Amino acid sequence: MGTTSSILRIAHARMNPTVGDLKGNAGAIAERIAEAARLGADVVTFPELALCGYPPEDLLMKPSFLRDSRIALEEVVATTRGTVAIVGFPDLSGNSLYNAAAVIHDGRIAGVYHKVELPNYGVFDEKRYFARGDGSLVMEIRGIRISVTICEDLWVKDSPVERAVRDNGAALTVNIAASPFHAGKIALRRSVLSEFAKRTGACLSYNNIVGGQDELVFDGGVMVTDREGRLIASGQRFAEGLIITDFDAVELASRSGRSASHGKLVVVNCRGTACHAPAGGNCANGSKSCDAAVEPEFGRIEEIFEALKLGLRDYVRKNGFKKVVLGISGGVDSAITAAIAADALGKENVVGVRIPSRYTSEGTFKDAEILARNLGIQCITISLEKIFTLYMEELAGAFGPGAPGIEAENLQARIRGNILMGLSNRFGWLVLTTGNKSEIACGYCTLYGDMAGGYSVIKDVFKTVVYEISDFYNMRAGYDAIPQSIIDRPPTAELRPNQKDEDSLPPYPLLDPILRAYVEEDMAAEEIAARGFDIAVVREVVRMVDRNEYKRRQAPPGVKITPKAFGKDRRIPMTNRYATGMFDKSRPVS
Amino acid sequence: MGTTSSILRIAHARMNPTVGDLKGNAGAIAERIAEAARLGADVVTFPELALCGYPPEDLLMKPSFLRDSRIALEEVVATTRGTVAIVGFPDLSGNSLYNAAAVIHDGRIAGVYHKVELPNYGVFDEKRYFARGDGSLVMEIRGIRISVTICEDLWVKDSPVERAVRDNGAALTVNIAASPFHAGKIALRRSVLSEFAKRTGACLSYNNIVGGQDELVFDGGVMVTDREGRLIASGQRFAEGLIITDFDAVELASRSGRSASHGKLVVVNCRGTACHAPAGGNCANGSKSCDAAVEPEFGRIEEIFEALKLGLRDYVRKNGFKKVVLGISGGVDSAITAAIAADALGKENVVGVRIPSRYTSEGTFKDAEILARNLGIQCITISLEKIFTLYMEELAGAFGPGAPGIEAENLQARIRGNILMGLSNRFGWLVLTTGNKSEIACGYCTLYGDMAGGYSVIKDVFKTVVYEISDFYNMRAGYDAIPQSIIDRPPTAELRPNQKDEDSLPPYPLLDPILRAYVEEDMAAEEIAARGFDIAVVREVVRMVDRNEYKRRQAPPGVKITPKAFGKDRRIPMTNRYATGMFDKSRPVS
Repeated sequence: MGTTSSILRIAHARMNPTVGDLKGNAGAIAERIAEAARLGADVVTFPELALCGYPPEDLLMKPSFLRDSRIALEEVVATTRGTVAIVGFPDLSGNSLYNAAAVIHDGRIAGVYHKVELPNYGVFDEKRYFARGDGSLVMEIRGIRISVTICEDLWVKDSPVERAVRDNGAALTVNIAASPFHAGKIALRRSVLSEFAKRTGACLSYNNIVGGQDELVFDGGVMVTDREGRLIASGQRFAEGLIITDFDAVELASRSGRSASHGKLVVVNCRGTACHAPAGGNCANGSKSCDAAVEPEFGRIEEIFEALKLGLRDYVRKNGFKKVVLGISGGVDSAITAAIAADALGKENVVGVRIPSRYTSEGTFKDAEILARNLGIQCITISLEKIFTLYMEELAGAFGPGAPGIEAENLQARIRGNILMGLSNRFGWLVLTTGNKSEIACGYCTLYGDMAGGYSVIKDVFKTVVYEISDFYNMRAGYDAIPQSIIDRPPTAELRPNQKDEDSLPPYPLLDPILRAYVEEDMAAEEIAARGFDIAVVREVVRMVDRNEYKRRQAPPGVKITPKAFGKDRRIPMTNRYATGMFDKSRPVS
Repeated sequence: MGTTSSILRIAHARMNPTVGDLKGNAGAIAERIAEAARLGADVVTFPELALCGYPPEDLLMKPSFLRDSRIALEEVVATTRGTVAIVGFPDLSGNSLYNAAAVIHDGRIAGVYHKVELPNYGVFDEKRYFARGDGSLVMEIRGIRISVTICEDLWVKDSPVERAVRDNGAALTVNIAASPFHAGKIALRRSVLSEFAKRTGACLSYNNIVGGQDELVFDGGVMVTDREGRLIASGQRFAEGLIITDFDAVELASRSGRSASHGKLVVVNCRGTACHAPAGGNCANGSKSCDAAVEPEFGRIEEIFEALKLGLRDYVRKNGFKKVVLGISGGVDSAITAAIAADALGKENVVGVRIPSRYTSEGTFKDAEILARNLGIQCITISLEKIFTLYMEELAGAFGPGAPGIEAENLQARIRGNILMGLSNRFGWLVLTTGNKSEIACGYCTLYGDMAGGYSVIKDVFKTVVYEISDFYNMRAGYDAIPQSIIDRPPTAELRPNQKDEDSLPPYPLLDPILRAYVEEDMAAEEIAARGFDIAVVREVVRMVDRNEYKRRQAPPGVKITPKAFGKDRRIPMTNRYATGMFDKSRPVS
């Protein structure tokens, strides 16, 4: 087992800060530094902007916020002893604001690194806030050179940061990150880390932020690679707490360079640690051993489920709610939303409301009750029938002659919305909406009706995936917690006699791939059709997506789980007359 | 009067393109080029991104959109004869996208300029889309050097663009712009133009885009300065059509340089024009004369009124609506909204709906009718009383014992929302909401109630300014078109007995300056209080603004008229625990 001098122990603090809660976050950081010190860590890392939460958005425009961030950082600094802490914070230096990492040791800031590569795409707006850092930071601990980097710095090939890691002879790169989740992204992230390690020949220690923030979920996930890019340790995603990794200090020191041609060199006179015996594992190439093994990864649907749970839980918790309420129709969307809520918040904190109308079938009405019983959630029943009838009477004069149309369908949805919001206002419950991405994409939903609510759990989940999650949920439960009849029933809004979703939309197994191609891949109608879809169907889908942008702008937030969610990810004007096919493509283009 | 060779005639096409309408915009551009040619213009300028509209946002992520933009540009190119046209378009060149200006002459693209300075602050996200141009473009017409620049290029001091204007010996700078309106901005814009002209010693010809696009209004406004920065011609803002300016070609040529040390030099073999006699004016220093005089500017409230009208008109028109419907309560907010709508769309296209409840006073009920009569708009009356009563009965069991609270107030607002949306869905009318910025800032409004609608005309207008606009409107009308009793009545939501806004909010003349300091100036509570406000009042206002971010996210769009509107301008997280004063400020900060 290693002696004090032969091991470099790194603790990764998996942390879920709340945006803006500078005092709370600083307190949590200080506690974990103390814990890491007790565990004999030489270094403890915290995620990108852990001090203020990520993304703080325009809070960064407030001078007071930046001042208070500095105060919070000083509170952390004052408590550090022994262990070196790497803490992400917004650094106002002169007139420039940087996305920064402080290297803190023994009650002082030994150095500050400024992020160089600033993402300004997708959900990111970092160039709105931050100046680009113009140097690197390498710290030296007992002769071991460690480069400090932030998130995107790893994602740009042959960047100044990458060159600095090589030139400064770093044997290890620490990266603190705030990389939002989407399904399947972990493979990409692993590959980026692995390639960076290989290109630089340095081991890599990666610590991603955890938690839900409005529409984003950060899945966390500590990863450590050897200098050949092999994953040698990882900490489970969607979870908090310290992950400890031990490196062979002698080998790292021998691989460290001695020049300092680039940027800042911060020599930390770290005394070494009263080291705990490493807990095993066999981490080749520069890492002697580590107590964190490589954790098994979540399955495809399981990670989506975890993301939805964490996103909902954090939105509820961080905004000071305890209970949620939602309409349970007997359909699969509200069923899976209720199931996720019960898992995320506890069944005692979920209230289901059945609001039947003349068009509600006996089957769906009954299924909703069975669902509530299976999940163990409270179930309230309120009829909208009399209210709907009265509305139609009161509006008869204004509506004039002619059969009721879409206004009557929407009115029923809006009465449901009113009832749920009434309960919300009376009892302080957060209303969950239950629309899925397929519906919301096509505008197959009612503004101020089923769209009324505070959080929209499955808004980024295509209908076909809703079914997969339901199957997963039942499989995990070991029985049909979501009744099979709910899963099997053809989707219907039940707002007019014998209505089926397929009256208005293509069947979901056809619709979803078209939507994915249009929304997530930005393909033109003609290109999508070339994948084997009827061009008329594709054009109609595209038309529906385009014309319903205004509805989505008034939709509640919900968890992003795809590469491109509606929202900050996809900023399409409401006023927009663009349609592919407006030109005859046979004309040559110069 | 000038001969062909002694005059350089520039036409400024004040243009209101629709975002995404590539075919329509290209057609309008081609028509104006032909018109400019008929008027003997040497050069005709179009605003920034006139071809696709501004801002196209993530349409720029669609490869098909960029291809179609190129086709649209080619359609324009094919029609140009004689006159040189400067047309803003998105230019995909290799793998990089540029915010570009094409110099088009006699059926070909003679050169393309790429915008250098890309704004990525406020409402702008240009670094999300565009690469930074790395050169300048100077065109030479009959020995006259003209620099082509785009919007922000003028706003950065000592930029590469500015240096290039000087180094290339340009006698005239053409700037095509898409600069959004806020009240009072014209003074800033004039000063920026004037300073640029002075620093470069070149005359300046500025052409800003016109029109409403979702939340933005572009006020247009052609401006021409001499080389000492004096405004020598301007075209009225908020208006379309050509503005012609004649320059002394001999003088401009004599002031033009002959080196080409920077960027591209485009020599256009323009034959000169069969020149119309200039219409007078006396434009010193480089401009011989111009038919456009310096237009008188709008007053402070008048320009806000024009912006609100144009924003509303374009949202309605460009989205294919004809009529609008709104609740008229007898209060000043709905009165001014109705008045603006009647002015913008024609009184025959505005429907007012009175929806009284038990709390509606005789006075407000009556005033709403007088208002409708004065404006000449249709007025419908529908009572919510019976519906409200029935809701409360049906919900009595679920609500349980205890007096009705906020849920009963909100329910009335939501019934009103349902009625207006019912009319919208039945007849295809766009619902206008009537909330002002003071209310929306404080969350003094009901989600899915008075916030339900498609466009929110005065959402960025503080209540105190609403009164000013009402007075302006009546003054202009020459009588109390908005009844004085509406203006004089203490503001009330009339959702419970004897309710007044001041029960919940500070008086507006006190509230609005606090909101302005907090929202628009990003000041901390303590700093605002130092301006002479009670700190407890300021803290309560700040608390209200912060906690109601979630409501604003579900609000309809509306016209930005202040330096910082809620929306793209101010991106505050919903989940946000930041509060100034969380730290004891007596601690020293390093």
